[in-house]
Amino acid sequence: MYDQEYGGAPGKRAMFARGRQSVRFPAPVFLESSASVVGKKEGEGPLGELFDAVGEDDLFGGNTWEEAESCLQRDALHLAVQKAGLNTTDIRCLFAGDLLGQGIATSFGLLQYEIPLFGLYGACSTCGLALSLGAMAVCGGFADHVGCVTSSHFCSAEKEFRFPLGYGNQRPLSATWTVTGSGAFILGSSRREGARAILTGITPGRIVDYGIRDSLNMGACMAPAAADTIACNLRDFGRAPEDYDQIVTGDLGSVGRQALLDLLAERGIDISQRHTDCGIEIYDAKRQDTHAGGSGCGCSAAVLSAYILKKIEEGSWRRVLFVPTGALLSKTSYNEGRNVPGIAHGVVLEHIG
Amino acid sequence: MYDQEYGGAPGKRAMFARGRQSVRFPAPVFLESSASVVGKKEGEGPLGELFDAVGEDDLFGGNTWEEAESCLQRDALHLAVQKAGLNTTDIRCLFAGDLLGQGIATSFGLLQYEIPLFGLYGACSTCGLALSLGAMAVCGGFADHVGCVTSSHFCSAEKEFRFPLGYGNQRPLSATWTVTGSGAFILGSSRREGARAILTGITPGRIVDYGIRDSLNMGACMAPAAADTIACNLRDFGRAPEDYDQIVTGDLGSVGRQALLDLLAERGIDISQRHTDCGIEIYDAKRQDTHAGGSGCGCSAAVLSAYILKKIEEGSWRRVLFVPTGALLSKTSYNEGRNVPGIAHGVVLEHIG
Repeated sequence: MYDQEYGGAPGKRAMFARGRQSVRFPAPVFLESSASVVGKKEGEGPLGELFDAVGEDDLFGGNTWEEAESCLQRDALHLAVQKAGLNTTDIRCLFAGDLLGQGIATSFGLLQYEIPLFGLYGACSTCGLALSLGAMAVCGGFADHVGCVTSSHFCSAEKEFRFPLGYGNQRPLSATWTVTGSGAFILGSSRREGARAILTGITPGRIVDYGIRDSLNMGACMAPAAADTIACNLRDFGRAPEDYDQIVTGDLGSVGRQALLDLLAERGIDISQRHTDCGIEIYDAKRQDTHAGGSGCGCSAAVLSAYILKKIEEGSWRRVLFVPTGALLSKTSYNEGRNVPGIAHGVVLEHIG
Repeated sequence: MYDQEYGGAPGKRAMFARGRQSVRFPAPVFLESSASVVGKKEGEGPLGELFDAVGEDDLFGGNTWEEAESCLQRDALHLAVQKAGLNTTDIRCLFAGDLLGQGIATSFGLLQYEIPLFGLYGACSTCGLALSLGAMAVCGGFADHVGCVTSSHFCSAEKEFRFPLGYGNQRPLSATWTVTGSGAFILGSSRREGARAILTGITPGRIVDYGIRDSLNMGACMAPAAADTIACNLRDFGRAPEDYDQIVTGDLGSVGRQALLDLLAERGIDISQRHTDCGIEIYDAKRQDTHAGGSGCGCSAAVLSAYILKKIEEGSWRRVLFVPTGALLSKTSYNEGRNVPGIAHGVVLEHIG
């Protein structure tokens, strides 16, 4: 598809099609390398063999859960830069974020690199946000190489959003399990040895609020946003679901997946045969007792790096719509009785032909 | 300067100079309009007459401080779009953020617009982050018009970072007062009637940690980052301080200003005759008992809209380096004894000749 859309040459075209919400990049943006670092539980899941590094404990050398999450980002970026055959000084800027208040996993994790940082917040959709902004920076000619990094950690997220772990609260079956993990991606403007995929377009998401307030059913909160972004993407690019080999949402889990399929069916769109969700893929829900599936900024990022990009590289999937999903709440807004709106950012990834 | 640098024509050049950390935009990005909405105390300050709207109380129609802050963002964006002679449907995407955990002032304030949203976090530097990313999106040809919005609120920030207001804690003289306010900016690619300035370059900041831990002396925490960004900007663009009519930091306040001047003096750079700080300008510190000055995402944004852009429009200042400054902490990292690193994003704004 790279060959068809760009005529085989990675040169820019002056004109490019775009819809109201999406951008089709006029020059290919290469996903040069990626890396994933995850926790013990993720390493024991169905994708365990595919991750670059699996921690022995969940502290990764840190003293607190927040430090542990910072270590995840630091290590994932280090690995991704190394795998691209670059030095950290080659990375012009970073696009990064996490789930914690004021993005401290990112701030303390990426400080040492001394690379200009664009700090992001898009809840669990941040991987899509980072790839979208990074791709615009590369395609616009503002950077040769950029890094996109996101993370989450089960223990820091439970503390931030729900209850201290020691409280041992009961989790309903609609709850998801925050992934301990980080994914890092290097984007660049020219085709290099070992590049994993090309990023050909984006559909930045808008906030969608269906009035749902249950923070232990995040899948339902986010499904309307995922449906909106997927429908916009298909409209803007003039594509049918069949034009994608796979449409992969971030962390809807099994409950959110059903809501997504239902919402799209109402619009006459059937993606059931080509949809999966990173939160469903990362755990064996029954064996690992993770209920509806995995979630968190690290979920879609780690699964993209370890699993989705592998499929695209191999050519098993030639064009994928990757749609990380985020639930926009804080403990403050939740305790004040506000709804939990969702947001989802779509990224089109294609096989390098 | 617009005429000199672009030869009078807003067409793109194929080549453009750039340093290691900065970007000089190959085509001008117009700051088409802006708006500021502030609280009562800010309205009583020295810039009071210049703000577009001043609230009668600090709730702005909301029921909580967080809702009040959301209303600030909603109203500022509405005004900015109106002043640009546009409709909200003309705005292709938003770049926005605030100081609260998980950016809830932004999420709930901008939800109703149904515009694709890139959520940001850069502490009080977020206005620079939003303008930088928005300018890249416009200059790269990905958007005709984008909106950049940031806010802060004294009451929501005190609750988020320090003590509940009812506790009535004592504030040391190094403390700053979080501005209740929001600034919104519309950036666009073509010169329109009433455009206020052009944005010709950016210097995205990196995180700088001098080991300071005092969250009641944010000026000192952020000054090293401001010094780093200013020095990088001068180096990358090959400019001396005299090439700027004014260098305006975000919210260093009087304590941070002195630290900044000292740090730059160590590098042989003297900006003392052309430096001011939004946090110093917004309050009459003695009369208003605000100690070291104003701070917050809303401080630099409201002062940019009301004061700095007015000076640039009039031609009193023909080229300004605007450097919003941010302190990267959360109550979690602070309570865990971590340092408070700083970050500062530089934006070059010029008079339309």
